[in-house]
Amino acid sequence: MKVNGKHYRTIWVKPDDEKVIQIIDQRKLPHKFVIEDLKTSEDFATAIKEMHVRGAGLIGASAGYGMYIGCFEAFEACEKTNDLEKFDRIIYEIGEKLKATRPTAVNLEYAVNRQLEEIRKENSTRKKIFAAFETADKIADEDVNCCKKIGECGLQLIKNIYNKKQDVVNILTHCNAGWLAFVDYGSALSPVYATHDLGIKVHVWVSETRPVNQGSRLTAWELSHEGISHSIIVDNTAGHLMQKGLVDLVITGADRVTYTGDVVNKIGTYLKALAAKNNNVPFYVALPSSTFDWNTENGKEIIIEERNEDEVKYVHGKYYHEIKKVLITPQLSPATNYAFDVTPRNLVTGLITERGICSPSEKDILRLYPEKNYRRG
Amino acid sequence: MKVNGKHYRTIWVKPDDEKVIQIIDQRKLPHKFVIEDLKTSEDFATAIKEMHVRGAGLIGASAGYGMYIGCFEAFEACEKTNDLEKFDRIIYEIGEKLKATRPTAVNLEYAVNRQLEEIRKENSTRKKIFAAFETADKIADEDVNCCKKIGECGLQLIKNIYNKKQDVVNILTHCNAGWLAFVDYGSALSPVYATHDLGIKVHVWVSETRPVNQGSRLTAWELSHEGISHSIIVDNTAGHLMQKGLVDLVITGADRVTYTGDVVNKIGTYLKALAAKNNNVPFYVALPSSTFDWNTENGKEIIIEERNEDEVKYVHGKYYHEIKKVLITPQLSPATNYAFDVTPRNLVTGLITERGICSPSEKDILRLYPEKNYRRG
Repeated sequence: MKVNGKHYRTIWVKPDDEKVIQIIDQRKLPHKFVIEDLKTSEDFATAIKEMHVRGAGLIGASAGYGMYIGCFEAFEACEKTNDLEKFDRIIYEIGEKLKATRPTAVNLEYAVNRQLEEIRKENSTRKKIFAAFETADKIADEDVNCCKKIGECGLQLIKNIYNKKQDVVNILTHCNAGWLAFVDYGSALSPVYATHDLGIKVHVWVSETRPVNQGSRLTAWELSHEGISHSIIVDNTAGHLMQKGLVDLVITGADRVTYTGDVVNKIGTYLKALAAKNNNVPFYVALPSSTFDWNTENGKEIIIEERNEDEVKYVHGKYYHEIKKVLITPQLSPATNYAFDVTPRNLVTGLITERGICSPSEKDILRLYPEKNYRRG
Repeated sequence: MKVNGKHYRTIWVKPDDEKVIQIIDQRKLPHKFVIEDLKTSEDFATAIKEMHVRGAGLIGASAGYGMYIGCFEAFEACEKTNDLEKFDRIIYEIGEKLKATRPTAVNLEYAVNRQLEEIRKENSTRKKIFAAFETADKIADEDVNCCKKIGECGLQLIKNIYNKKQDVVNILTHCNAGWLAFVDYGSALSPVYATHDLGIKVHVWVSETRPVNQGSRLTAWELSHEGISHSIIVDNTAGHLMQKGLVDLVITGADRVTYTGDVVNKIGTYLKALAAKNNNVPFYVALPSSTFDWNTENGKEIIIEERNEDEVKYVHGKYYHEIKKVLITPQLSPATNYAFDVTPRNLVTGLITERGICSPSEKDILRLYPEKNYRRG
């Protein structure tokens, strides 16, 4: 998508140097747009762990490119001996290092394993490097295509509302499930971008998303650069807007969705879903198929990550030209910081996937993914 | 209540100087405990307008003392002539100035009008000053007694839960309806203090309350100084805690309650009430009788104040030893900032008043306030 009018992905090969990958350092957003060069597998491990990159799709793509860059390290270590086993051993260790950075990220493991398989197949170091390069690009391109299709499917929903209303369609979202969380387009925001491209007027209510503020920092920034009308609200405001009839549709992303349709997503999603139900506002969740959890029946079974209390107690913000971290609570008061919550399927109107829209039920999800039905049977 | 082990009210006459009123400058909390001297009616106007003091009860008490201090200004202006009409005219103008500081605060208007009436009755300047002094103290004492009774009524609820559970009672609150919002005790927190005094263990989930963070700044600070177990959560977390069975009871304050039981309170209250209903958690609202709106039937009729977007876009916090204001959103993204929302009566389990607990219905509210039934008939 666009930054200051120029098209970017969230990760790409440096144009004049194929041994360098470039990313947007998302920690600095929205205050500074900083492009960072990643030159070693260690650079990738740091970037993923310390959240220079974040979001399911982008973490996967980063791991793909990280493995490719790791191949140069393996190559150097066995250039003289041409020891292919040593090459594979080194690349395996790099994979383990990358996997350890965000242990619960499904896409990270998937990308590393796929690279290991492709690299092992090849019978020369140069071929291995080339395979890794191609696979990294493929992982990224697949993410882009998948998000684009989610956009096309979700577009229909928004168009239907517009056709009835013949006025600006007001969409509320939570957290950041935009292109910054993927390689391009995003999940929840992809339908918004597709609608805007058609010239249909949309307005996005951007829920701040405490404690890390991915909504007010990242979603608002994305929308600004696409020229899409939006307004930031604190998370508390979502219910009041729906009571007043100011929301036509809610679309969020998801961190995990059970094969029965329970949705694990950023903390606060559940409260928005309750308000949507109470006010008859359609509540949709957009996700690529990689986000389905085919092994869990009930969302309540999923263990919710508790994160450091400092995310609640401190806030990063811009003070003149510097970014400062300030304390916003009594120094000694404890804070409790659950990262996600579970929205039960009965509060969800539908799921927007790259294969179409389905209701949040095992039967309808398996209609779109019949191959999973086979595996489950 | 206590600050560093010493008892304070939120407003009091300076011990060695009856012409000075002292307050806690709440803008500096929780980072600094600053006592401020108010010596002129202008000082009071500033303190109310710029929120050195806030909360319905405390705004009323401040207006009472402000009128008393204003009497010295009236006295000086007509000391030589002993012109009582001029005295009353000056004090009337001071009253108008104070009323204009927070035009929607019901208690402010009430306190000013009551003072004007008492002052006008007296037939000498000295008597007028003395009457104003006594009335200011009375307004403050009445607030204290009212809040104390709310505590005694609410205590029963918490005791009942404790008797069944025989373990720590987990109470969730929103915003600050503690002693800092009144003269002492508070409304929503008064039952918590009463329970703690009995030696029954309580734990308070303190909802941050974006955008102005009255929960994480003020409620957490109050509870710390009373030695009450608590934990700050972002507003998004309330639903997840209830889903996990970690909340036994919700108690919030209110800014206005219709005579039919609809509750206007800090934005986000509605979302907590929805989550409470969805998880069968009792949801109570504590309020002094002055908070009832005897003229409004349906909460939807009430116009909700929209405040400046900078409350959403900037955050005040402590950076080393200074308090700094930092920008946390893209500079140019707009924000929408509704201050309150309406929780419909069907989501409210009961109202805790100084006269007892009632259900949120016209019939049961009028049972506690039969004199209002007469007026309504």
